[in-house]
Amino acid sequence: MSWHRKHLLDIESLTAEEITLVLDTARAFKAVGERAIKKVPALRGKTVVNLFVEPSTRTRTSFELSEQRLSADIVNFNTEASSLKKGETLKDTARNLEALNIDFIDIRHSASGAPHFLARVLNASVINAGDGAHEHPTQALLDAFTIREKKGRIAGLNVTILGDILYSRVARSDIWALTKMGAKVTLCGPSTLVPRVFEQMGVRVTHDVEEAIRDADIINLLRIQHERQRKAAFPSLGEYTSLFGLNQARLARTKPDALIMHPGPINRGVEIDSAIADCDRSLVLQQVTNGLAVRMAVLFLVNGGKGPQEVAP
Amino acid sequence: MSWHRKHLLDIESLTAEEITLVLDTARAFKAVGERAIKKVPALRGKTVVNLFVEPSTRTRTSFELSEQRLSADIVNFNTEASSLKKGETLKDTARNLEALNIDFIDIRHSASGAPHFLARVLNASVINAGDGAHEHPTQALLDAFTIREKKGRIAGLNVTILGDILYSRVARSDIWALTKMGAKVTLCGPSTLVPRVFEQMGVRVTHDVEEAIRDADIINLLRIQHERQRKAAFPSLGEYTSLFGLNQARLARTKPDALIMHPGPINRGVEIDSAIADCDRSLVLQQVTNGLAVRMAVLFLVNGGKGPQEVAP
Amino acid sequence: MSWHRKHLLDIESLTAEEITLVLDTARAFKAVGERAIKKVPALRGKTVVNLFVEPSTRTRTSFELSEQRLSADIVNFNTEASSLKKGETLKDTARNLEALNIDFIDIRHSASGAPHFLARVLNASVINAGDGAHEHPTQALLDAFTIREKKGRIAGLNVTILGDILYSRVARSDIWALTKMGAKVTLCGPSTLVPRVFEQMGVRVTHDVEEAIRDADIINLLRIQHERQRKAAFPSLGEYTSLFGLNQARLARTKPDALIMHPGPINRGVEIDSAIADCDRSLVLQQVTNGLAVRMAVLFLVNGGKGPQEVAP
Repeated sequence: MSWHRKHLLDIESLTAEEITLVLDTARAFKAVGERAIKKVPALRGKTVVNLFVEPSTRTRTSFELSEQRLSADIVNFNTEASSLKKGETLKDTARNLEALNIDFIDIRHSASGAPHFLARVLNASVINAGDGAHEHPTQALLDAFTIREKKGRIAGLNVTILGDILYSRVARSDIWALTKMGAKVTLCGPSTLVPRVFEQMGVRVTHDVEEAIRDADIINLLRIQHERQRKAAFPSLGEYTSLFGLNQARLARTKPDALIMHPGPINRGVEIDSAIADCDRSLVLQQVTNGLAVRMAVLFLVNGGKGPQEVAP
Repeated sequence: MSWHRKHLLDIESLTAEEITLVLDTARAFKAVGERAIKKVPALRGKTVVNLFVEPSTRTRTSFELSEQRLSADIVNFNTEASSLKKGETLKDTARNLEALNIDFIDIRHSASGAPHFLARVLNASVINAGDGAHEHPTQALLDAFTIREKKGRIAGLNVTILGDILYSRVARSDIWALTKMGAKVTLCGPSTLVPRVFEQMGVRVTHDVEEAIRDADIINLLRIQHERQRKAAFPSLGEYTSLFGLNQARLARTKPDALIMHPGPINRGVEIDSAIADCDRSLVLQQVTNGLAVRMAVLFLVNGGKGPQEVAP
Repeated sequence: MSWHRKHLLDIESLTAEEITLVLDTARAFKAVGERAIKKVPALRGKTVVNLFVEPSTRTRTSFELSEQRLSADIVNFNTEASSLKKGETLKDTARNLEALNIDFIDIRHSASGAPHFLARVLNASVINAGDGAHEHPTQALLDAFTIREKKGRIAGLNVTILGDILYSRVARSDIWALTKMGAKVTLCGPSTLVPRVFEQMGVRVTHDVEEAIRDADIINLLRIQHERQRKAAFPSLGEYTSLFGLNQARLARTKPDALIMHPGPINRGVEIDSAIADCDRSLVLQQVTNGLAVRMAVLFLVNGGKGPQEVAP
């Protein structure tokens, strides 16, 4: 198959074949990142706007570097300095940017659906860099890439996502990506953060951490989002850590080849013991490295690239 | 004729022939913006500093993209992060930047005359990106370009500028550019914002909106600058809208081929009805597109380019 | 000799031969900065992160331009927008950046030793852009470069450093560089800011400004750091200026060929009379120009460049 989408808005609407195509293309771009000259001319003369209406450092940096390595021209546009403060609407901002003959908008926004809205009103390609508590598709693709790279496959694996599921766009995108690719996904965390309603997405929900990690091949820890909690979802960070944090005792009860993931930035000593974050079984930094390759692949494909066979060797 | 100026400080000192040369060169660059690879090597190895001492998003973005498409190296320098906070003078800041072997400074500053001051103390080329309530020459050039492109000419046209004239550098630059090019310019708005003294610039002043729009070929709406008003120039925004806002009823009383312009960002529902801003007769987004071409042309010319014949086809 | 270091962390550990090699390489890059196209491909496809965890404009701008002129890809990462705010450690931030396959980190940090820490935990090359009150090695190299360029040598010269020595990383790096290169260094300022303990670094300490400037070939004025003073080190700025400021009367009592330096930004009328800052004997702007060449040389060398003979003529 070959890619035919103009936008990357979510994982929900992708097929397993499309996800596989992104991962295969990302593998080709990962090789580019290991060369002495980590640059290809694929997007030369094209313009990408990074429209980050919600603060971010690591995702924005990863997108920006992926654009540089594709030789694109880049405009960084964040709210702090922006006309949005003067009451301009998102639509006006985006259409004004588009009038500058831009080709791509990578958007992060606190409102769910903002990227879909832009895709309807713009001619440019839109890439969702995280919208509200809805989806964060490039994170799910880099997670899937990392799992496939380390385990050789995704189908049939037991993947446990542990932590703040309710407020997490990463969790939603991961669930879509991993179930489509055939993994058996378990969600775990306090009942306030992991409601049973998620079972409708085809996953197992448990509030018993021992049960959740026992058979897991992958344990994906999500950051506890202090900032975004609107009410007290659990009594204290200390209680969360003692009930759900991944510590050495719990790690000893996992399968010996279970691997640990985390989208970052990690709260050392909260959802994960500091030593575990840095151990051989932790894929945290490899996720970061793979994020760059996945974002290059996504930009390459929405720009009309057909697949990995077109990436210069 | 060919271009011979080192700086672009204002429209007041330009001749009609010079304005025409910029517009012709911008037309050649507009074609570059429509190519798959929107880049030319004209400024390769040259360095441009965007010295924005007053917040701006759209103008800075337009300048930055125009510099990227000319292949320049770019330094963005805004006050928030700057030494100006430590009490350093503008002159020291600018001379320090120049000592880095830069070639161009695009400056926006709240003080009228700041670009002229820099042009006197620096060897670099200075481009005025808006100084206080004085001038905003690239905006006037893009407005003139857009009018000429849509109407085929500027001479003899009736152009009405409606809104906050007193505090507007856009209005001043537009008046200079359009009168030099032979248009008949009418200013309209509340008497507190459109004093009769503007008649000395060779324009008509009226406070009757119906009279102002009746024969207009172009209606250029200026943004009501809440932020910059030092005293109450009119009772309320609602009253401004009812007396001077462009709504469907008023639009129906204009010439059928009258076109609507606005330098942006628009206040939907204040100076312009939201539907009018998006209708076929609105040139708002085309102004943005043309701004990029005009800024490429200005940088190209102050860098020693002679005119459109030198822009690669 | 040829360069063999992976990092530039301080001047203290460099030999005079290594300093000379940097200066010779910088001389070759200074010639590049005087060409029409001020760019070389030395770092094409390499990625540099400017990790500025303490505000800076001029040093960051100088580093960024030096990277652009070496054709590197650049990521600017400053605290304001960063994950450091969420409690992430410097190590996590740096390792995450490194996971993006970056090659160089230029770091400015308020903690002394932060660059050395990164050099231990990362594979990337680390360049110290100023750490706490410890060192600012590229400033010392550009000062040494400027002295050698103007005086033809450093050995045997009398160099007086006047001002806030105690809190100055510039002073520490300058002392190391200049004494290694054979200069006789005198420190002068209020006894609260210039304690006798500095004599252990092989320099003369005096609190008598007349004695300090009488035989000086170079007078290097340091900025009075209002911000960083934790206690009142002198009664008032006015008193500092009258006792230690370089004014016309004091300048008249220096050697006729004594030259004035200042790392900037200058406090006109505090540590230096405004007219002196702008006179022919002031090297302030030449220091800025040379800083760019020195930083290009440092990046070139830590990237594996051997010396000036490899810089394209």
